Amino acid sequence: MPNGSRTEGGAVPSAVVNRLSMYLRELHHLLADGKQTISSSQLGRRLGFTDAQVRKDLAHFGHFGHPGIGYRCDELIDEIRKILGTDRQWNVGLVGVGNLGHALLGYKGFASQGFRIVAAFDADPAKQGQDIDGVPVYSSASLAEEVRRLRIDLGIIAVPATYAQATADMLVAAGVSGILNFAPFTVSVPEGVSKVGVDLARELEQVTFSVMSRLRAAAEPS
Amino acid sequence: MPNGSRTEGGAVPSAVVNRLSMYLRELHHLLADGKQTISSSQLGRRLGFTDAQVRKDLAHFGHFGHPGIGYRCDELIDEIRKILGTDRQWNVGLVGVGNLGHALLGYKGFASQGFRIVAAFDADPAKQGQDIDGVPVYSSASLAEEVRRLRIDLGIIAVPATYAQATADMLVAAGVSGILNFAPFTVSVPEGVSKVGVDLARELEQVTFSVMSRLRAAAEPS
Repeated sequence: MPNGSRTEGGAVPSAVVNRLSMYLRELHHLLADGKQTISSSQLGRRLGFTDAQVRKDLAHFGHFGHPGIGYRCDELIDEIRKILGTDRQWNVGLVGVGNLGHALLGYKGFASQGFRIVAAFDADPAKQGQDIDGVPVYSSASLAEEVRRLRIDLGIIAVPATYAQATADMLVAAGVSGILNFAPFTVSVPEGVSKVGVDLARELEQVTFSVMSRLRAAAEPS
Repeated sequence: MPNGSRTEGGAVPSAVVNRLSMYLRELHHLLADGKQTISSSQLGRRLGFTDAQVRKDLAHFGHFGHPGIGYRCDELIDEIRKILGTDRQWNVGLVGVGNLGHALLGYKGFASQGFRIVAAFDADPAKQGQDIDGVPVYSSASLAEEVRRLRIDLGIIAVPATYAQATADMLVAAGVSGILNFAPFTVSVPEGVSKVGVDLARELEQVTFSVMSRLRAAAEPS
């Protein structure tokens, strides 16, 4: 199967992984609303997918439904968290405490999914020793030491593009398993390290593509 | 075809649109390196996709290759920009000038793809009248007026989750065509407006999924 994805190291397309994340969020909403079970068509409809899509996505990983019942929300949450690896806590180190780094340190969406930013790093001595949203800022020079001491699994790169590769190299040398890169530069990592690049312009291109598709469809004779 | 995507309003999966963005970036690199033409297998290899994937993605939109030559880089760049809608400039308004808003105003990746942030909006009077990276900050109350005056096409939501829906409503009422939402809250928009939600934890889940896939593969007897 072609990978067709930004995620490396697996045969499952990143679009499937992306939808698993969306199913997980929706199942949490359902549980919070007191719903115990849901069918694939109900789950799909709430997110704009077909029931076949939901079943196909989950079939990559096993059989999770119950005949005549559908999915048990709490059970499926556990299973998806296991698949995504978020049934455990991940310690995250963030490199680069500029505006973006600040924003990420204050981002509420990480902790709720099992990601705990335990340290931030910056080359600027004026920032070192600060505490931002409960996260201490260390010198970049101490990165390797702190990654080991704090058992940091994942690194987030929030430095300018020119420092992105050097930062990735430092994180890899320190022993992280995966990297999320926000710098507008494609970093190289060795095979045993996972990486995902966030390109914010690409997200805007999804919006304009959708706008243009609508305009094109409206212009077509029906 | 199931949509299977975060993008609304089109039958083409968002994963395809995502890859078009990646092809576009790579073609720009190739042109900058003095390369005039490229085959689907060369383009695919540079990004970790098969040549079949590249051809299938482009076949959604037409026939762009030349027998015995492959793709002409400049020609394919023009075609992909037309498909994505980035062959024109889009005026963008950003709402919420906190850390994330600041980071987005300074993000270099938007302008290079045809996105021009022409105005920022914030409810805090202390921020109004400021100029951040060349972008003036207006009061949220003047949003409708400025969207019309500055011909703003797209809105970026960078406010806290509790204000996300009200901000989306204001942008829609003001007449934007599309919205990119960074708030950790799913906003509703009417059918004629495109929206994409950015969930940063979902990006980290792509990383952990890849890490877990690697660990699972290593644990399997070969």
